[in-house]
Amino acid sequence: MPSYTAPVKDMQFVLHDVLKVTEQDVPGYNELEADFTSAILEEAGKISSEVLQPLNVVGDKEGCVLENGVVRTPTGFKAAFDQVKEGGWTALDCDPEYGGQGMPYVLGVAVGEQFTSANMAFNMYQGLTHGAYSAIHAHGTDEQKSTYLPKMVSCDWTGTMNLTEPHCGTDLGLMRTKAAPQGDGTYKITGQKIFISAGEHDMSDNIIHLVLAKIEGGPEGIKGVSLFIVPKFLVNEDGSLGERNGVAVGSIEEKMGIHGNSTCVMNYDGATGYLLGTEHKGMRAMFTMMNEARIGVGLQGYAQAEVAYQNAVIYANDRLQGRDVTGAKNPDGPADPLIVHPDIRRNLMDQKSFVEGARAFTLWGANMIDQHVRSDDEAAHGIVSLITPVIKGFLTDKGFEYATAAQQVYGGHGYIEEWGMSQFARDARITQIYEGANGVQALDLVGRKLAQDGGKHVMAFFDLVKSFIKENSGDEDYDKAFLEPLKAASKDLQAAGMYFMQNGMKNPNNALAGSYDFMHMFGHVCLGLMWAKMGKAAMVALEGGASDTAFYETKIATGKYYMARQLPATAMHLSRIESGADTVMALDAANF
Amino acid sequence: MPSYTAPVKDMQFVLHDVLKVTEQDVPGYNELEADFTSAILEEAGKISSEVLQPLNVVGDKEGCVLENGVVRTPTGFKAAFDQVKEGGWTALDCDPEYGGQGMPYVLGVAVGEQFTSANMAFNMYQGLTHGAYSAIHAHGTDEQKSTYLPKMVSCDWTGTMNLTEPHCGTDLGLMRTKAAPQGDGTYKITGQKIFISAGEHDMSDNIIHLVLAKIEGGPEGIKGVSLFIVPKFLVNEDGSLGERNGVAVGSIEEKMGIHGNSTCVMNYDGATGYLLGTEHKGMRAMFTMMNEARIGVGLQGYAQAEVAYQNAVIYANDRLQGRDVTGAKNPDGPADPLIVHPDIRRNLMDQKSFVEGARAFTLWGANMIDQHVRSDDEAAHGIVSLITPVIKGFLTDKGFEYATAAQQVYGGHGYIEEWGMSQFARDARITQIYEGANGVQALDLVGRKLAQDGGKHVMAFFDLVKSFIKENSGDEDYDKAFLEPLKAASKDLQAAGMYFMQNGMKNPNNALAGSYDFMHMFGHVCLGLMWAKMGKAAMVALEGGASDTAFYETKIATGKYYMARQLPATAMHLSRIESGADTVMALDAANF
Repeated sequence: MPSYTAPVKDMQFVLHDVLKVTEQDVPGYNELEADFTSAILEEAGKISSEVLQPLNVVGDKEGCVLENGVVRTPTGFKAAFDQVKEGGWTALDCDPEYGGQGMPYVLGVAVGEQFTSANMAFNMYQGLTHGAYSAIHAHGTDEQKSTYLPKMVSCDWTGTMNLTEPHCGTDLGLMRTKAAPQGDGTYKITGQKIFISAGEHDMSDNIIHLVLAKIEGGPEGIKGVSLFIVPKFLVNEDGSLGERNGVAVGSIEEKMGIHGNSTCVMNYDGATGYLLGTEHKGMRAMFTMMNEARIGVGLQGYAQAEVAYQNAVIYANDRLQGRDVTGAKNPDGPADPLIVHPDIRRNLMDQKSFVEGARAFTLWGANMIDQHVRSDDEAAHGIVSLITPVIKGFLTDKGFEYATAAQQVYGGHGYIEEWGMSQFARDARITQIYEGANGVQALDLVGRKLAQDGGKHVMAFFDLVKSFIKENSGDEDYDKAFLEPLKAASKDLQAAGMYFMQNGMKNPNNALAGSYDFMHMFGHVCLGLMWAKMGKAAMVALEGGASDTAFYETKIATGKYYMARQLPATAMHLSRIESGADTVMALDAANF
Repeated sequence: MPSYTAPVKDMQFVLHDVLKVTEQDVPGYNELEADFTSAILEEAGKISSEVLQPLNVVGDKEGCVLENGVVRTPTGFKAAFDQVKEGGWTALDCDPEYGGQGMPYVLGVAVGEQFTSANMAFNMYQGLTHGAYSAIHAHGTDEQKSTYLPKMVSCDWTGTMNLTEPHCGTDLGLMRTKAAPQGDGTYKITGQKIFISAGEHDMSDNIIHLVLAKIEGGPEGIKGVSLFIVPKFLVNEDGSLGERNGVAVGSIEEKMGIHGNSTCVMNYDGATGYLLGTEHKGMRAMFTMMNEARIGVGLQGYAQAEVAYQNAVIYANDRLQGRDVTGAKNPDGPADPLIVHPDIRRNLMDQKSFVEGARAFTLWGANMIDQHVRSDDEAAHGIVSLITPVIKGFLTDKGFEYATAAQQVYGGHGYIEEWGMSQFARDARITQIYEGANGVQALDLVGRKLAQDGGKHVMAFFDLVKSFIKENSGDEDYDKAFLEPLKAASKDLQAAGMYFMQNGMKNPNNALAGSYDFMHMFGHVCLGLMWAKMGKAAMVALEGGASDTAFYETKIATGKYYMARQLPATAMHLSRIESGADTVMALDAANF
């Protein structure tokens, strides 16, 4: 049976040693004193380990069951959801005007990592609600906000996002769901949506669906898509629940993983819907949810790798098999623990250095969202919008890769469901697919974000790397171990960008054929930057006489590993990119 | 519902254009005329597509069920097994003295790929039997051979290999299963074995278990391990089945995949066993099975990628989503098929170039096994023994990676079990684990095979690459596209070997920490060599006026892709290796 311990100390390190949140001039950040964040994270960690994690395997085994139009969630999910609600966790970073606690997003993300590592399928019920809350908060009328938000902040009502239809996922312009205006400001929504996470379940009194649909007579394609609020139960003027709306679950999907979350086919049959935001501008409103969701999904990727890693370490210390070639480490036992073997360590260090880098990267992203939302920092907004597809695509590809690598440490036992390692891999797998498959993230990055505002944001990113290197060089060992590899990787990334500029003009395929490699390069450079920052912060702490020397020395050693063993990947990606589109596009479709 | 079409033409290309089997002076190879192998492969392909493949999803859904000591295989498995037996497929490359057809192993492997792509869990019942057949054939007495082999060749009796125990997998020296001599030449076997594929089932009259155990009073550790034949039913002198032996299935495992194969806990309770080979030399006899099994598992890895790729191509041609950025390819439809998009092609080309390279690599390995077994070619034996861990480790890592990549083409549908793509990934996952987890393959390669016979075999391998380059250079385009990348990759591999020699002496961890990367580099160089050979063969065919120009041109284009986009990985692996063991071994076990 797997276990989970919240990495509070590592999170504190990122918040306070690296990001130095209390020193930032962001409204609300002054509250984030180390003692305060530590208390919150410890408390969240307790719920994660004691309440959510034990239900993870239950959720996987039982799954959700649809009977007579009602979806039954796994044993224990409802009680745990009530406990999370009562603890105020769903309100943590929500607007106080609607009952939220008004904490910064960066803290919400740290707590979210814990809940997700403990039980990803469970935490999605809350995560989807948060996304819908944000969309209504950003685009709703005052009346919509006061009607829905207080109940969604408390998760008495949960939320969903409805984009996909059987014949369209990425290409939403093909959408067929219709919205017929009723003349009273409401619409009748008719159509079928698929892959709706938490579309129907038994944990909340009402479900607020956000649904993309086309208003009859509107523009063709993606330009005619609007967003609607479609509650499961209509809400009376006094806020009480009224009649059942014309939306029903058709079936639930049998999936590779996240069995504890109900993935629904939703049928809309003249359901009453309320326009959210401007008509035909539904994609803009939806992107409020999607950007938040993409960061949340990147987080899911590395959070699964984190919990899988923790269990792999326990197993590698417990399981006795073979002897250290340089001399027995457990001479009185029948064999040495797995962790003495260099290739087991290589595997564990790959995992560890990724997860800790990914955490810093994600919290940095969340920090920039706070800077934008709370301080109107447009430069921060530009960079976080640039790196959002990298957080989503790179962290989920690697998250799955390392959840699988952790499973590998268990040998044959890793393949047996009883041990729980297969679930981490199966659950992580969806993160590469939903909220825009990773190929679409790469396309967003290269086809859209790179050139946005005349390339201003990517230039700002490179400047940021350059300034960091300049401001922090001087220590010979640090420069060699951290700054030189970062400089080389960043140079590779710039060269790739240059290749796209020079060759994408004459044929856009030269850029698009390299987009996936570019996303991965970008991810490595970002994690390299994070490790350079963490290495520096650890050195500063040690120089300042920090007592826990092992903790900081481990950070430096782990960072050195990442720089030496992971950053060389950028050269490979550059080679692939510079080989251009010719070999990629050579075959006729019939010759595949 | 997924489908499968046997890639007969691609197999014929490897056998006849690349390996030129009929020109080889190997007994039995003169029979392998193109018409003959084509007829065999077409017939096997028919069974694969029509009989085995439709049962693949059935096996995954139903799994195997243990009731009252009897394991029930999925609906249709028994009837299909009878059909495979009646067609003589189980006897294809077995010794005619025991009812086999005496075909070369290389042909058996080609057929095996088809059966495995069609239904991996199903084909394991036969595959394990073949392994046990080979061990008895190589190490059994005449009496043992005549008692067991005819029935195993026909698969009236199936076989298993019993190595693993709950506390020992890789480290078989820790084994506890005991063999007590009875004074009449037989032994009583007592102990528990786990992860026994096809350990109990309802498809054969008898099951011949090959079991590793320690004879009481023998040497400690791995030097005291012997191999025993332990039939489920004892065999009477006249060959009829006698009494039930003291071996029984304890339980079957719930696994991530290969649900159609029963993975059993086997309990031996004073079961009668017969020594196979010499006492205390069980590992030597077991390796006969394991080497064959490792090639078989490498094949499973790429065979799953092959079938997943085939389905991804079908989906990419069918699914309409988005538009080609260089201009609509399906202007009358609502959107273009996925296959127009560069990143979809990048993904499909990764898969295609891997699978075809892997097939050539595996058939080349099988060819060398024939050269050794049929012609006593010791040089061929040396090379195939060197590359066996590469076939196993590299082809299964990449096989899983690309089965997963094929799943990705389906977007959200890939995560839904109904579409069948999840099964390919879940089934492929075991190939990285069993028959020696891939870390153990890397250890075998670097710790054992590299230095074997004074490094003679690895030198022979490099000579072979060098000679190929020398003999085939001269065409400017070919040299640039194929030979230069191969030369560079081979140089990287040699540099890594040199690093191990120079640094492994003072600290073996410097070699072992790089073993996994070395295995992957080696794999890339081997597939690079295969593509150089295939590219050349295709050029020769085109120059010779072959009519199917599209086929040969596609081979050249696919090879160019591999050389340009995959071989650059060797430089990354070399960087990782040359960073040495320091960052890998830096942490105390407590600091992970």
